[in-house]
Amino acid sequence: MADIFERLLKNYGPIGQHRERAHGYFAFPKLEGEIGSRMKFRGKEMIVWSLNNYLGLANHPEVRKADAEGAADFGLALPMGARMMSGNSNNHELLEKKLADFESKEDAILVNFGYQGMVSLIDVLCGRHDIIVYDAESHACIIDGVRLHPGHRYVFKHNDIEDLEKQLQRATALIEKQKAGGILVITEGVFGMAGDQGKLKEIAALKKKFEFRLLVDDAHGFGTLGKTGAGAGEEQGVQDEIDLYFSTFAKSMASIGAFIAGPKSIIDYIRYNIRSQIFAKSLPMPLVIGNLKRLELLQTRPELKKKLWDVATKLQKGLKERGFDIGKTDSVVTPVYMKGGVEEATAMVMDLRENYGIFCSIVVYPVIPKGHIIYRLIPTAAHTDEDIQRTLTAFSETKQKLDAGAYKVSAIPDMAEA
Amino acid sequence: MADIFERLLKNYGPIGQHRERAHGYFAFPKLEGEIGSRMKFRGKEMIVWSLNNYLGLANHPEVRKADAEGAADFGLALPMGARMMSGNSNNHELLEKKLADFESKEDAILVNFGYQGMVSLIDVLCGRHDIIVYDAESHACIIDGVRLHPGHRYVFKHNDIEDLEKQLQRATALIEKQKAGGILVITEGVFGMAGDQGKLKEIAALKKKFEFRLLVDDAHGFGTLGKTGAGAGEEQGVQDEIDLYFSTFAKSMASIGAFIAGPKSIIDYIRYNIRSQIFAKSLPMPLVIGNLKRLELLQTRPELKKKLWDVATKLQKGLKERGFDIGKTDSVVTPVYMKGGVEEATAMVMDLRENYGIFCSIVVYPVIPKGHIIYRLIPTAAHTDEDIQRTLTAFSETKQKLDAGAYKVSAIPDMAEA
Repeated sequence: MADIFERLLKNYGPIGQHRERAHGYFAFPKLEGEIGSRMKFRGKEMIVWSLNNYLGLANHPEVRKADAEGAADFGLALPMGARMMSGNSNNHELLEKKLADFESKEDAILVNFGYQGMVSLIDVLCGRHDIIVYDAESHACIIDGVRLHPGHRYVFKHNDIEDLEKQLQRATALIEKQKAGGILVITEGVFGMAGDQGKLKEIAALKKKFEFRLLVDDAHGFGTLGKTGAGAGEEQGVQDEIDLYFSTFAKSMASIGAFIAGPKSIIDYIRYNIRSQIFAKSLPMPLVIGNLKRLELLQTRPELKKKLWDVATKLQKGLKERGFDIGKTDSVVTPVYMKGGVEEATAMVMDLRENYGIFCSIVVYPVIPKGHIIYRLIPTAAHTDEDIQRTLTAFSETKQKLDAGAYKVSAIPDMAEA
Repeated sequence: MADIFERLLKNYGPIGQHRERAHGYFAFPKLEGEIGSRMKFRGKEMIVWSLNNYLGLANHPEVRKADAEGAADFGLALPMGARMMSGNSNNHELLEKKLADFESKEDAILVNFGYQGMVSLIDVLCGRHDIIVYDAESHACIIDGVRLHPGHRYVFKHNDIEDLEKQLQRATALIEKQKAGGILVITEGVFGMAGDQGKLKEIAALKKKFEFRLLVDDAHGFGTLGKTGAGAGEEQGVQDEIDLYFSTFAKSMASIGAFIAGPKSIIDYIRYNIRSQIFAKSLPMPLVIGNLKRLELLQTRPELKKKLWDVATKLQKGLKERGFDIGKTDSVVTPVYMKGGVEEATAMVMDLRENYGIFCSIVVYPVIPKGHIIYRLIPTAAHTDEDIQRTLTAFSETKQKLDAGAYKVSAIPDMAEA
């Protein structure tokens, strides 16, 4: 007879296995001070490229004022209970209306967090005869929503329209055979790791050949793409073809919460049945008020998005000119692909932090194949030219060291917090 | 070929089906003004029995001050990113330490919401060979966590120790047969509908006969039960037998967020692997600061729990004296069981609200069997003797009308918001 706890302790997982030497440094680091391009890490000032504060709203004076006033006026407890039972308010409804208008949809519903909202949205939409067809590189929240689905699911190769068509053929044939069920296609507006946009236009065009509903998670597109910042659907001119538009507030909005926008009848259905909301407390009022202010700035200050793109363009251009491989990004998300072992990546990150004052996130084996390293830089409207130049220099110098084998060390050093 | 949306619109669900006449009144009502025993509903003052603000902390002056100062000092955006990537802070760690100490556990981890935290906790603990054995009346968050489990699950009759033993025998036999896996028993400290405590003492005693780990969701026990308010485990003298103690902050703490407390090694494992947290933004700093203050008051102001119990005892005693059936509650949760149709229940709730100024929640068919009505009253430390007396009178009078058939109307009236 085995014990659940004993089994768990045999393998702490891809990052957990390094926790004894990495906790507080490579994992669970503390960035201190006001959110911006410069923050403190272990007492040292860093140029930070790890926060999805795309438009710089986190620390915008009007946002800080709205956040402070909302909490002073209402406290953080209000409203109590689930929206459906006792937690509704005019502000919640107003934010929903404004989000729906912004996304050119009839209605919208707030959910408490992006992860739980998407998981529960997929759950509420799909019955056992329905078939989910989703992109292979979908975010964990989509994967976990699909895991709750009792019916069939077909995955299509990342952004591969030919393969999607194949899966839609399979799905359509199965539905005809079982004489019940529909198809839900799920993809993302911008894939957060590689920064490439989902091929929404090509996917939407398949509606002429197949019958399906399209759900798009646009966490990284919302506020950063499209003429008005309405996201990847607007950018690609297919917003009307997106049946359900989803975004978190955790990126451009620099807050918590998320929303789903779509046809009024379906949003109504979701409102009364989405389990992560009907069985959870409502989003606190000051967060709703803070999100109203953020949305207003996002819509009325196009200079923020322009500044974001200026920074992103300079950073991406500078990296490419210096010979770096930034892959296929067509968003502000900026990955930098290198080759090296986990130990080398670790030593290089430490060099960047300790000697160059550059804080960015890395992805290594076992999340990606052995021998590969991805640095992930998130530009924001709060970054300056000096931030960019210092970062480009630091990357050039550390890359030379990496190529010269200077980071070949025998083991990950002990950087855990005392 | 069916369309997912078309199928959904055929059945809006148990409450959604009434939305056109009920929205804003019976569902999604707006309670306005400061949280307390008196709030405004559609412009009228109501005595409110629907909010789990057990200790009255929602509007406590020290809580309001902490909430306002936290938001003024930090804004609602900080920290950005998941705890593991960039969203950690000293305050998050401090709150975890204080929660662990309070619950007599080695360590604790914060999660963003109770619902998503429990779903993801069950997911991170259980592999495909493990067997979950859980109470039949478990909250939706437990049910949905179990739905994510790829392995076997056995349900035991609500609080039926004999049946639990049967299920443990089955589970043990299967694990011996498959030569892998362990058993996780899940129950609640207090069942939120009926108010009866989970039989933790009896369940813990079964550890002498069977090998299993015990996870307890103590959402309604935390702050309300036990000498120090540590919950149902303390109340029943078996806190040490609870392997993982879970509570939301949405009830006694009058906030959002939740936590899991247990052995350090297991909490570490959870910290690095629980998907609802490693793929979601960290709990905002002002909420953490506000929760630190709430926990301090919960621990240092025993008069709040005493007041809560005074109110609950008077209410429950008064109802029983007037011949009402309040079932088997042994917590402050106060259900009132009556017989009648959905239309009668609806008319009675309207009478209570419109003519007596009493706001409480009801549960009817199809959530419970046809012909039954449950009123659910949540006493808090903020209620007064006058609130109780007026409520007892209102219940007596409306019950007489119900028994006399005065609420037999032909259809649910249209009470939707204009």
